[in-house]
Amino acid sequence: MSGLRIAATGAMLLFPLLAHAGDLRADANAVFKPIDAGSVNSVVKNNAITPAKIELGHKLFFDPRLSKSQIISCNSCHNLGTGGVDAGPTSIGHGWAKGPRRAPTVLNAVFNIAQFWDGRATDLKAQAKGPVQADVEMNNTPAAVEATLKSMPAYVAEFKAAFPTDANPVSFDNMANAIEAFEATLTTPGGKFDKFLTGDVNALNDQEKKGLRLFIDKGCAGCHNGVNVGGNGYYPFGVAQKPDAAILPVADRGRAKVTNSDADAYVFRSAPLRNVALRAPYFHSGAVWTLEEAVDVMAKDQLGTTLAPDENAAIVAFLGTLNGEQPKVSYPNLPARTKDTPRPQ
Amino acid sequence: MSGLRIAATGAMLLFPLLAHAGDLRADANAVFKPIDAGSVNSVVKNNAITPAKIELGHKLFFDPRLSKSQIISCNSCHNLGTGGVDAGPTSIGHGWAKGPRRAPTVLNAVFNIAQFWDGRATDLKAQAKGPVQADVEMNNTPAAVEATLKSMPAYVAEFKAAFPTDANPVSFDNMANAIEAFEATLTTPGGKFDKFLTGDVNALNDQEKKGLRLFIDKGCAGCHNGVNVGGNGYYPFGVAQKPDAAILPVADRGRAKVTNSDADAYVFRSAPLRNVALRAPYFHSGAVWTLEEAVDVMAKDQLGTTLAPDENAAIVAFLGTLNGEQPKVSYPNLPARTKDTPRPQ
Repeated sequence: MSGLRIAATGAMLLFPLLAHAGDLRADANAVFKPIDAGSVNSVVKNNAITPAKIELGHKLFFDPRLSKSQIISCNSCHNLGTGGVDAGPTSIGHGWAKGPRRAPTVLNAVFNIAQFWDGRATDLKAQAKGPVQADVEMNNTPAAVEATLKSMPAYVAEFKAAFPTDANPVSFDNMANAIEAFEATLTTPGGKFDKFLTGDVNALNDQEKKGLRLFIDKGCAGCHNGVNVGGNGYYPFGVAQKPDAAILPVADRGRAKVTNSDADAYVFRSAPLRNVALRAPYFHSGAVWTLEEAVDVMAKDQLGTTLAPDENAAIVAFLGTLNGEQPKVSYPNLPARTKDTPRPQ
Repeated sequence: MSGLRIAATGAMLLFPLLAHAGDLRADANAVFKPIDAGSVNSVVKNNAITPAKIELGHKLFFDPRLSKSQIISCNSCHNLGTGGVDAGPTSIGHGWAKGPRRAPTVLNAVFNIAQFWDGRATDLKAQAKGPVQADVEMNNTPAAVEATLKSMPAYVAEFKAAFPTDANPVSFDNMANAIEAFEATLTTPGGKFDKFLTGDVNALNDQEKKGLRLFIDKGCAGCHNGVNVGGNGYYPFGVAQKPDAAILPVADRGRAKVTNSDADAYVFRSAPLRNVALRAPYFHSGAVWTLEEAVDVMAKDQLGTTLAPDENAAIVAFLGTLNGEQPKVSYPNLPARTKDTPRPQ
């Protein structure tokens, strides 16, 4: 990175404004990556992404009949109209049960190192099976889901088309595979930050550029980097000082529950910050309702520093440039239930 | 109708097959009407249907932030993916409260004489205000809805564009006007029955034609007629004999609550039967899960007759021809909440 800076500094003598932007752009490209929607085929493992799987997954994602009550779909908590999350602070599920953590966004989730706040699911197909079965979420069973899907001939035909070589195409595993295929399409390229990264130095205004510089230089980018500006590593929450218990509830020890290691107490996957301005409230607790406050919390508790108001405002402005083009998705017409479809409970 | 039959009988001497279909088609056209999506502008009163209103209503219909919990939208109970209704039997709302009646479909609802099972709302704009405020549904208040909408600049701009001459465009009334405009687009023309009505005598197969003939001759069409094959008048439920209490709960006296007249006890708007095969369970109680059983209940309790199995099957087959082309709707990207947006409760 320092080599790039030296080169850029040389160029500044000739083209001060352009070269300054180029310096920042080089530094940014050293730690971040633009979203490449075409890359998901190589990112997703053990599940070839095909149009038939995507279309089936599209229906399943919106189908509330995957839940025991038959009124909760994937989209209920991962609402594609509001940044891939629900209203929060944490999700409400079967029987109006309140879940323990804020819903993570499904947008660009394909690029995360693993799924859930604690990374307990390797990938999206593993993740998709969790909420369907969690008693405070969809509260269903794999057997009931399979009975529901097998009761509708149109679904059976779509599973056969999506998994043509499977002896038993209509399965809970294939439900998850199809949902992963659809979710892999839910990327948000083309935002201002990606335009900047890929060469348009005027895509960010001066305040946004100042925010990006601060984001890198203050250390935010130490955990929030890569294509998702986060989501690609595990870090303790409370490096400099312990956050307020409303923000970091004592009972939720994060990744320690996954690894059974005290070393992972209060360790979480760094939050992916793509489209973050669209999805308040923040943190796994959903306890913070503005980006301004969230940035201050991170500065104090993670970096041990206090931001000046203009620094906070600049970083918030930069975070707004992480909004990308939201997926254009149709609302699917779902197969009609039959007399054999299990009834809602 | 008898004049049409005599003319058709004469024609049968020359073209027996065509004339037989023509006879049925003439009889059908005397009591039913095909869906004309273009007619909604004249059907909707006191609310000019404009593209700006439709697009705003499209967002509002899918926006869960109209509810107190901010997780229940119009589409939660009037799911456009499943025939414009939820899974039933009755809807689940705020706090997991169970509503008293099955959700009526929003598809083609613009053509109904009035809205709700008891017709207590004159039109869709009046209807739209009900569930938003009902404590067992969205449980919100007009003031809170207006505060929510006014907190998001993108909504304010859309309301201004949709209601350009209003001094106070962002209002609960205009929320309802916009939702009515969107819902007026949710028609399902082009089904097999409409093709038959408008001239394609081969659009129905022999069993479906037999069912249509029975539907008219047995008397079903006495209440289920017009463009929505129902939805255009009020009739007692239990004309011939009182239905089972599971189907007609004693405590719900129907339209009597609206008119305060004992003469309207257990009177309901006739169910509109468009797309009925897509939206089990049936009746305002949602107590009957198959169309076969629903048809038998109606024959016994309304018409005082018992259908032979082949008659029941033929009527069910005919009802399947009332499925139309389902609306093609995108899933909208909604305005992002701001620091001023009321929080979910």
